[in-house]
Amino acid sequence: MKNYRLVIQYDGTKYNGWQKQGNTPNTIQERFYNVLSKMCGRHIEIFASGRTDAGVHASGQVANFKCDTLLSCSEILEYLNHYLPEDIKVLSIEEVDERFHSRLNAISKTYEYSISTTKADVFKRKYVYTELVNLNTEVMSISAKELLGTHDFLGFSALKKTKKSTIRTINYIEIKKENDIVKIIINGNGFLYNMVRIISGTLFEIGIGKKDKDIIKDILETKNRELAGQTLPACGLTLKQVIY
Amino acid sequence: MKNYRLVIQYDGTKYNGWQKQGNTPNTIQERFYNVLSKMCGRHIEIFASGRTDAGVHASGQVANFKCDTLLSCSEILEYLNHYLPEDIKVLSIEEVDERFHSRLNAISKTYEYSISTTKADVFKRKYVYTELVNLNTEVMSISAKELLGTHDFLGFSALKKTKKSTIRTINYIEIKKENDIVKIIINGNGFLYNMVRIISGTLFEIGIGKKDKDIIKDILETKNRELAGQTLPACGLTLKQVIY
Repeated sequence: MKNYRLVIQYDGTKYNGWQKQGNTPNTIQERFYNVLSKMCGRHIEIFASGRTDAGVHASGQVANFKCDTLLSCSEILEYLNHYLPEDIKVLSIEEVDERFHSRLNAISKTYEYSISTTKADVFKRKYVYTELVNLNTEVMSISAKELLGTHDFLGFSALKKTKKSTIRTINYIEIKKENDIVKIIINGNGFLYNMVRIISGTLFEIGIGKKDKDIIKDILETKNRELAGQTLPACGLTLKQVIY
Repeated sequence: MKNYRLVIQYDGTKYNGWQKQGNTPNTIQERFYNVLSKMCGRHIEIFASGRTDAGVHASGQVANFKCDTLLSCSEILEYLNHYLPEDIKVLSIEEVDERFHSRLNAISKTYEYSISTTKADVFKRKYVYTELVNLNTEVMSISAKELLGTHDFLGFSALKKTKKSTIRTINYIEIKKENDIVKIIINGNGFLYNMVRIISGTLFEIGIGKKDKDIIKDILETKNRELAGQTLPACGLTLKQVIY
């Protein structure tokens, strides 16, 4: 059976995230199920590199599905973009080795959290977290470096104690000013539940002076969620890229 | 009575334009009426520099209203932004001379029409007209220059023959590529009904080779709407600035 790899963009505002969980309605995956099953004439499974939570966006989510269609890649692309809702878009599609699995083969992922502290912009309101405060991005940059490397990130997650490993590796983190938007760009081999939003909330609170710049080390050591900052809203978060 | 001048930003997607016309519900002006009347305890009129049509956006609309409130400008700003919907935002407010009128004193306005021909971007879908075609922006730039100066723009409007003057002056027009977006930026002393969208549609059709590059001259001479291009969708249009 042919295996297809898709790069997908979505505005997550209206969805309960990527993944269908039990009876959770209104997921992005469900929209793909419907259109792909119609295209192939039978039930088709589709797997993404990972879940994105309710309200989180993606500009470079990767997914794969298996199917025996006679359509060419560009015909599939056209079909999907014709029938998918306007807030979901397939950017590219290619046939890949049958062993390729978008989640199992993913090496790392890059997320971006966008914050506006200078003005509320109605055109960006669904994609940026806005709070009008003074944000010290230099101290954020210095503190962020403490996250680099392999650590137990339990303190930066919404997980209760778990038997699964909560050790992850952060390869890259940058605080970048782009026009009026402060972006926290983070690449890692995997992220725990709410981890990027809690890291962003912690760095944000360091940036406004609400938390000490040395708190990151303490959270990594104690694994105490109470020490970390707020979970920033889903709207500011975008899955940018999945690396294989 | 004090006269206040506001600079306003709105996402026009959900609205029937700025102005209340008879019983047309769901206008931006109506939202201001409601909030201002509540703030002042009586019915308050608000005037903008001009109407924007249904679905058209603004990042720099100017409006004024008269009121005898004891609130300071920054308190009014906060009040309005608190009670207005999230797709309407007051950017600034200042007290001005009582003779200032946002429509009558406007000298010129700048509009921007945004077109994407390289990719459909779900995050910009409400603010950009997307059609995947080859667009020759150089020929568009050359043709656009024919519009400069004072002309009868009846052929570029959705108006039937009218007794009012259809003569307007275009001071500036530019075709600009910004990342993947082609922007038609146009400044003039006034615009007829649908004029910017028809000018944009005509330049667009010149850019894709559907219309001859010399058509602009013919339309200005004959005033024949049939010769001009399509009225591009409202979503791509933004009122950027009003000059006084």
